[in-house]
Amino acid sequence: MSVHSSLGRALSLHLWGESHGAGVGVIVEGMPPGTPVDADRIQAALDRRRPGTSDLVTPRAERDAATILSGVHDGRATGAPIHACIWNADVDSSAYADRHRIPRPGHADYPASVHYRGFNDVRGGGAFSGRLTAAYVMAGAIARPLLDACGIRVGAHLVQVGPERAEGEATMEAILSCAKRPGLACAEPGARGRMERCIRDAAAEGDSVGAVIECRMDGIMAGVGEPHFGRVDALLAYAMMGIPGTKGVSFGAGFDAAAQRGSAHNDPYAWDDGRVVCGSNNAGGILGGITTGMPLVFHVAVKPTPSIACEQKTVDLVSKTAATLRMEGRHDPCIGVRAVPVVEHLAAFVLADILRGEGRV
Amino acid sequence: MSVHSSLGRALSLHLWGESHGAGVGVIVEGMPPGTPVDADRIQAALDRRRPGTSDLVTPRAERDAATILSGVHDGRATGAPIHACIWNADVDSSAYADRHRIPRPGHADYPASVHYRGFNDVRGGGAFSGRLTAAYVMAGAIARPLLDACGIRVGAHLVQVGPERAEGEATMEAILSCAKRPGLACAEPGARGRMERCIRDAAAEGDSVGAVIECRMDGIMAGVGEPHFGRVDALLAYAMMGIPGTKGVSFGAGFDAAAQRGSAHNDPYAWDDGRVVCGSNNAGGILGGITTGMPLVFHVAVKPTPSIACEQKTVDLVSKTAATLRMEGRHDPCIGVRAVPVVEHLAAFVLADILRGEGRV
Amino acid sequence: MSVHSSLGRALSLHLWGESHGAGVGVIVEGMPPGTPVDADRIQAALDRRRPGTSDLVTPRAERDAATILSGVHDGRATGAPIHACIWNADVDSSAYADRHRIPRPGHADYPASVHYRGFNDVRGGGAFSGRLTAAYVMAGAIARPLLDACGIRVGAHLVQVGPERAEGEATMEAILSCAKRPGLACAEPGARGRMERCIRDAAAEGDSVGAVIECRMDGIMAGVGEPHFGRVDALLAYAMMGIPGTKGVSFGAGFDAAAQRGSAHNDPYAWDDGRVVCGSNNAGGILGGITTGMPLVFHVAVKPTPSIACEQKTVDLVSKTAATLRMEGRHDPCIGVRAVPVVEHLAAFVLADILRGEGRV
Amino acid sequence: MSVHSSLGRALSLHLWGESHGAGVGVIVEGMPPGTPVDADRIQAALDRRRPGTSDLVTPRAERDAATILSGVHDGRATGAPIHACIWNADVDSSAYADRHRIPRPGHADYPASVHYRGFNDVRGGGAFSGRLTAAYVMAGAIARPLLDACGIRVGAHLVQVGPERAEGEATMEAILSCAKRPGLACAEPGARGRMERCIRDAAAEGDSVGAVIECRMDGIMAGVGEPHFGRVDALLAYAMMGIPGTKGVSFGAGFDAAAQRGSAHNDPYAWDDGRVVCGSNNAGGILGGITTGMPLVFHVAVKPTPSIACEQKTVDLVSKTAATLRMEGRHDPCIGVRAVPVVEHLAAFVLADILRGEGRV
Repeated sequence: MSVHSSLGRALSLHLWGESHGAGVGVIVEGMPPGTPVDADRIQAALDRRRPGTSDLVTPRAERDAATILSGVHDGRATGAPIHACIWNADVDSSAYADRHRIPRPGHADYPASVHYRGFNDVRGGGAFSGRLTAAYVMAGAIARPLLDACGIRVGAHLVQVGPERAEGEATMEAILSCAKRPGLACAEPGARGRMERCIRDAAAEGDSVGAVIECRMDGIMAGVGEPHFGRVDALLAYAMMGIPGTKGVSFGAGFDAAAQRGSAHNDPYAWDDGRVVCGSNNAGGILGGITTGMPLVFHVAVKPTPSIACEQKTVDLVSKTAATLRMEGRHDPCIGVRAVPVVEHLAAFVLADILRGEGRV
Repeated sequence: MSVHSSLGRALSLHLWGESHGAGVGVIVEGMPPGTPVDADRIQAALDRRRPGTSDLVTPRAERDAATILSGVHDGRATGAPIHACIWNADVDSSAYADRHRIPRPGHADYPASVHYRGFNDVRGGGAFSGRLTAAYVMAGAIARPLLDACGIRVGAHLVQVGPERAEGEATMEAILSCAKRPGLACAEPGARGRMERCIRDAAAEGDSVGAVIECRMDGIMAGVGEPHFGRVDALLAYAMMGIPGTKGVSFGAGFDAAAQRGSAHNDPYAWDDGRVVCGSNNAGGILGGITTGMPLVFHVAVKPTPSIACEQKTVDLVSKTAATLRMEGRHDPCIGVRAVPVVEHLAAFVLADILRGEGRV
Repeated sequence: MSVHSSLGRALSLHLWGESHGAGVGVIVEGMPPGTPVDADRIQAALDRRRPGTSDLVTPRAERDAATILSGVHDGRATGAPIHACIWNADVDSSAYADRHRIPRPGHADYPASVHYRGFNDVRGGGAFSGRLTAAYVMAGAIARPLLDACGIRVGAHLVQVGPERAEGEATMEAILSCAKRPGLACAEPGARGRMERCIRDAAAEGDSVGAVIECRMDGIMAGVGEPHFGRVDALLAYAMMGIPGTKGVSFGAGFDAAAQRGSAHNDPYAWDDGRVVCGSNNAGGILGGITTGMPLVFHVAVKPTPSIACEQKTVDLVSKTAATLRMEGRHDPCIGVRAVPVVEHLAAFVLADILRGEGRV
Repeated sequence: MSVHSSLGRALSLHLWGESHGAGVGVIVEGMPPGTPVDADRIQAALDRRRPGTSDLVTPRAERDAATILSGVHDGRATGAPIHACIWNADVDSSAYADRHRIPRPGHADYPASVHYRGFNDVRGGGAFSGRLTAAYVMAGAIARPLLDACGIRVGAHLVQVGPERAEGEATMEAILSCAKRPGLACAEPGARGRMERCIRDAAAEGDSVGAVIECRMDGIMAGVGEPHFGRVDALLAYAMMGIPGTKGVSFGAGFDAAAQRGSAHNDPYAWDDGRVVCGSNNAGGILGGITTGMPLVFHVAVKPTPSIACEQKTVDLVSKTAATLRMEGRHDPCIGVRAVPVVEHLAAFVLADILRGEGRV
């Protein structure tokens, strides 16, 4: 089974591309005919994950201009597959010549070489490159008008970078506005400064740091989703785990739920202006895989960038000896920073798919 | 889209059943013809999640005898769908009459009522009942001979109950042997005692506690899986989120990876007797969604049992007023305890599906 | 890939069972909660394919009483998977002992033995048995209320048995009423007599005959379906080819379209009481895979029953010598006769799935 | 559900494109890493369906140069999705302005307008254009090395054009060699002349004719496929029905099987040099959906080109009055002619998918 590049059922995406090939693209199928497809909005979404925008991310210059190749006529979805892509600029692939021989720790080089029997394109990470996440962002940007039409908002920001954490619950307004500011997307200003310092410190030492991203979706009606393998949380977790570097996903109280008692964890119901609400949101807006009508809140753990300048121990797969590796080049010191818009857009895509499958959009 | 009861591609399962209906069953498709199907082994797996076996779980007596209805002839898979089920004993459904009216906090009653427009069967939790996890266990027990044939072992145990944690890395031997002992499945004897006390304390107060389950798979060859949405970790996370009560899934260092630096997180490669190994396993045996050949290790956060004897605040959906609820009956004080074999068998099923899809079993 | 027992997307079915095992069943997922599930209607549908009802079909007595095991409460779909089955009576399987050794011509014995490496259950045809079509009928009977709600009617009848053909276009009323009469379902009374004689003649000689079934669906709105692999005709053809014995499927003018000129084949549009209609229906109600609003009409070619009393040449796979075979027992002289309700119900299921996927039911 | 542009499971394809948009492309996923991807072979396949090559097809000049955008490195599949496309030349779309208003008989204009609520791109037929079949051909050409490696050959040719039929069984050699000659692909030279005349006569009168294509696959091992919805014939029929203009598909004796007796239809088994063979091939190489080891033979009925120069009756959807239409332009007088390589390549793709799913390639 090799359908590794497809996601979604009623609304689906299919990826293609490599870091050092012709480009990276995504085909989105299932958009209702007539839905506006706004090239500026797709571009604005892409720009949020673009490198080179501050000293917190890699200084590589990538223009990443979205091109629409099919499925749109007069600014609206025709109902046919929508194909969006970014072309790659000319790149220097010489540095990747020996990835099959000297695998980088923390990267997929070694397992991918085994899986693909040495035929995978290792230049720039090939199909494993974080560059593929541009496709996730474009797909999400294409799908978002479906959420807008229901009054659903989706936002993401950093709640942890290295050991630095944001405390307290961020409002949707704070999350959405921090995405528009330059610098790190964190809704708590105090934490933001500490996070930025943490990244700069690691970068200065040729090292990297991990992060936790919080995603919040509000305005979702109660009753969306199904049990077992149609759970909203299961579908989101599956998609999030597809973002390179993700090591965990949790909903609501998440792993902290383990230490809670039921009397503290259960969210009590109450009436609010004729609407059923919960007095707390340990569930993260999901019970039995179905939305409760409370904001959907989840967290994604992102590991530190595996590409670091420090010397690392590895192996030479040809000579069958030990080897060391020092990775030159311009890398993101914290991949979590640029993963924020990826989490947000991929989550938006997944939710739009679920809503479309239920005939709600 | 309503394919909420199916999982898997090359090897797939389809669920049916409710808590208070005729029974609960699972159809497994894709087993190689000739694979032994051992009724005793399936029954032994089921017995591990059976209630009434100690004072740590609900005293309800459920016999849960597995019946094979199709796909097996002379003790071997024929290649046709294998249908295994357990029949329900006569049950008293009177207590569930008002679930559509007075939803239980922490349960799916309210969102399910909205989703199914009041037509869902609420008796005993209906299709949301933890009883459905017996189907996951049977499916996993059917699939396990495929893993055995590759020398892959799968074990799960509790590493946290309430605030009590097991420290240190458990060996596979310790994990497998703790499953065979009576009482709580935890590979660290000291923690086990503390966990049992924690559960008894909560139960005595009519309350419940959460848990974290660790699952470990060893003997997996490097190179299994694919990037994006064919990732081994994504497929496992998706399945685990389908277990009622799961609030999070993480791999290797998991959420702790956020606080790590790349130089500490990256697992260095080395040679061990002609085989590539890692000096640590922060990756949890997975890089880029593909196995590294190291043990696959992941954690599942399970919330406290929502059914508690303490009084809880809720709403009356008919009179549109506030209400309180006190749940009588015999409930598990920690659903994490009986979820251990569920995690283990569902993980085994998912891995068998992936291996079968790659033509390895 | 072994998902051979599942059909459908928004509304899906999963089969299980064998001819000489515990029974035959079907799980239907995706029925809107609240839809009436009428056991009598399911039984009435099953009774139409039941053997032993006339001298035109096998005299075997099979009660085939439908049992609902899940997904229905108080006579309505709950939204959970609906599981319907028929149990097998005690059967004598001794006659099947050497199917792996002496394959029957025209049956799947030989290719199935190779595919399943000799592990398939050959008793009564195992999973290849026509008895599995009872599951198709139950699934269709469960789905039909969705079509009723849209005013869509589905009927099937025989238009050819051996060389005997019905001429002229049958009305839906004639098709539906012939299903209720005893004897052969053919809307043209004259042809019906000739067809019955043809079957009796073949039976008297220990031989069998083939047939062509016409299926007609009316009341379908224009605009249902999508191009390429979402075509209504492609989805119907795929399902029909899953009925044992089917050798071809065609829509509208079908194979006769090859001999037509475009000027004769193209159906001219006209207005009829404010509605767009076609002056002819060579398209069979489908253009580009999408419904035109005209009746959907297709034909299914069914081969002669492979089980015949005449002596046939075959091979002995053990001794590797030539062999002859004479099949005793009570077989249908024309499997097309009992396939009529199967075609009708499976077509109804497929259409209900498509409509549900488009959010129309 | 809108996954209308995807086909296949272990080996899958995803289409994009329109007649008058940027181009037409296909993503192929699941090719074993290391498989040669030969651009010349893909181009040669495309050239067989290219227009402008004789007076039997439309004189439109389309260069149709295949471009590979991803998934190939150093001439071999990397394991990542392979993306192949052809770009569209500048086209004049003015003639299509009123397709939403005055639908062409025999085309999908009217049902598509209803389905897509008027938003579909009607220029050149949009996503319904026969131009999309170039994507099928590229996908098949990419997959064919998998069949070559098993010694499987696939060929297609015309066996009927209008009323002119080829008689007798064509050998694989004759079929393959007729594809290489200029003019119509028909393995029987006498019929070929009659077919060409038939097309020229229709074209001279501004009319068109239908056709029947025969596809033959030999070298397939016995035992490929599964019953019900994994049948090789069902999967092929589904794919063939996705080719625009197809009105029917049949296997082996096909619709003629209806008039046969079982004693004539059943193919007797015999030994041939230690191999089980059939004395006839009424089954078309398939029993119970599984290959018998005999050549797989099927027929596809293709309707006459709907675009004809004769005046046709239609409707004006805006004024709600009757209308007439005369289609200018350069159309194929028989779409069956250029459909031959489409049938052949799409069949090759489907078979490669099935074999890959069974772990045979």
